[in-house]
Amino acid sequence: MGNLCQTLAGKKDGAPPVWLMRQAGRYLPEYRELRQTQASFLEACYTPKVATEITLQPMRRFDLDAAIIFSDILVIPHAMGQDVSFVRGEGPQLGPLQVPRLKYDPQALASVYEAVELARLAIGAEKDLIGFCGAPWTLACYMVEGRGSKAHDGVRHFALSRPQEMEALMELLVDALSTHLVAQAKAGASVLQIFESWGGACPYGGLEPFVFGPTKQIVDRVRLACPGVPIIGFPRGMGEHLVDYVKKTGVNAVGLDYTMNPEAVNQRLGKGVPVQGAVDPQALVVGGEILRQEVQRYKKAFKGRPHIMNLGHGVVPNTPPKHVEAFISYVREAS
Amino acid sequence: MGNLCQTLAGKKDGAPPVWLMRQAGRYLPEYRELRQTQASFLEACYTPKVATEITLQPMRRFDLDAAIIFSDILVIPHAMGQDVSFVRGEGPQLGPLQVPRLKYDPQALASVYEAVELARLAIGAEKDLIGFCGAPWTLACYMVEGRGSKAHDGVRHFALSRPQEMEALMELLVDALSTHLVAQAKAGASVLQIFESWGGACPYGGLEPFVFGPTKQIVDRVRLACPGVPIIGFPRGMGEHLVDYVKKTGVNAVGLDYTMNPEAVNQRLGKGVPVQGAVDPQALVVGGEILRQEVQRYKKAFKGRPHIMNLGHGVVPNTPPKHVEAFISYVREAS
Repeated sequence: MGNLCQTLAGKKDGAPPVWLMRQAGRYLPEYRELRQTQASFLEACYTPKVATEITLQPMRRFDLDAAIIFSDILVIPHAMGQDVSFVRGEGPQLGPLQVPRLKYDPQALASVYEAVELARLAIGAEKDLIGFCGAPWTLACYMVEGRGSKAHDGVRHFALSRPQEMEALMELLVDALSTHLVAQAKAGASVLQIFESWGGACPYGGLEPFVFGPTKQIVDRVRLACPGVPIIGFPRGMGEHLVDYVKKTGVNAVGLDYTMNPEAVNQRLGKGVPVQGAVDPQALVVGGEILRQEVQRYKKAFKGRPHIMNLGHGVVPNTPPKHVEAFISYVREAS
Repeated sequence: MGNLCQTLAGKKDGAPPVWLMRQAGRYLPEYRELRQTQASFLEACYTPKVATEITLQPMRRFDLDAAIIFSDILVIPHAMGQDVSFVRGEGPQLGPLQVPRLKYDPQALASVYEAVELARLAIGAEKDLIGFCGAPWTLACYMVEGRGSKAHDGVRHFALSRPQEMEALMELLVDALSTHLVAQAKAGASVLQIFESWGGACPYGGLEPFVFGPTKQIVDRVRLACPGVPIIGFPRGMGEHLVDYVKKTGVNAVGLDYTMNPEAVNQRLGKGVPVQGAVDPQALVVGGEILRQEVQRYKKAFKGRPHIMNLGHGVVPNTPPKHVEAFISYVREAS
């Protein structure tokens, strides 16, 4: 059992295990080089040897405790039949959403599971491998709006004005995402993470039907199929609802973002619940003493609780790779 | 004393007073028509008769309890010497930030205070008039990044890598904003609101130095100069930190956004603290029974507490004006 899984099973002592959201990505020159040989971002996701290679790149450079499979949360809308493309410098763009036409094709993602298998073979038994998906609400944000947005007006309008379609979309997503997570676990992922990246944009009235309810259904189904595989939920921007999120979804552990108050989390969240995070990615860009202090802040705050060190959001492209090395050494130095 | 001021002074019974963030704006055809005669958005802000006319437009159509002066939070960076322009369809764009060159010129905003005076004369004694500003952190987001952004990476990097400049910027903003709010109150604003629109993007370590501390300084200075003028803080996206925000800034009342849990706010926030909000602006777009239920939800939740009815964010441009009329009638109908 890797360090990450040990912490997820309740281990509190020793240095926290460490991995980084978006650790396989644009801040690495070898990633940028490899991506130039690929026609598109999605082609890289769907070519098992390429996805595996990108997954392994940060593991070769850094002594991280876990790899996360190189993929994207939008492979699911794509596998459901919606057009998805990644325009360089502009982020993802999705085609028009027609809920009645959506139909999930599990075969469409066979190459992702093959990449998981290859990565599992390559990283060695003492390292964990993380599979992941976007949560239903977060995917609905992209699927309705067609792209990332600031206010998510489109999805909130859709949910209020076309409630049956929203409900149908949630059901389709729960089915597809459960299947997708189970397939990643069966292919060798030892930990799963559900990214609720736009959780902070969910209106209060939508929390139960679009966040808590559907996420719980996914957690229940995955647990039934793969009882031993822990699930980390990352409800970004949902600090106020963090305790409810953990209680109502049943995730094993919760990822914090960098806006959340670690002391308040300690007071309000059950003592045994493992937490993950939550260094500001900009502290990783700046590095040095600023970074060291951020790392120590979270180590100190979560002493006495199972804690996975990570950022409070993904690594940004202008992060110097040597700061990641320093980050890991700060995590492991004596407090 | 208008209904709004009575509620801010502790009145709990009767229908809540009602106004809407961005009630003077693009969803009104008469606003769009008037704006066509102006060279730019800022010219409209800086022409007293035009700003007054726009302020009054929603008051003529709807029986709102308060007018809010037509202006923008970015008049302050502009009056400090930074280039500010509004590009149609793209939102605000600011020129490069050079903190040592910033110098606030209070005379630059004389036309805003003249508009406040004119609006005060026009709306009648039973209506309140709201003056406002952006909070220092929110303005820093715009001033550093040059425009609205999703992740606010730029300002977080600036704050960590150039701490002295960030501190200097905060001090300059506290001075300018205090002066600006006091001038609006002296010109006739009976209520002031501080918009912390990007509060949800502030990293945990920045809450004290960039949100709580500077906002408290502004509140203290305004209270000293205008002891009778209540201040509403609107810490958008800061549900987790709402109670700390009220305690640490000393605002008289707090505006909620539409993601916040009203029951949790009631449990955690001092019983006498007036709250404002927080209907989803998309419910105002959809209208009908959906809107009515949203209004009733907040009326019910905040029965027994001073409550100002409002949206949980600004009116969006595609809002049908007749839904605003319905909104007000739902607010005033028996529960």
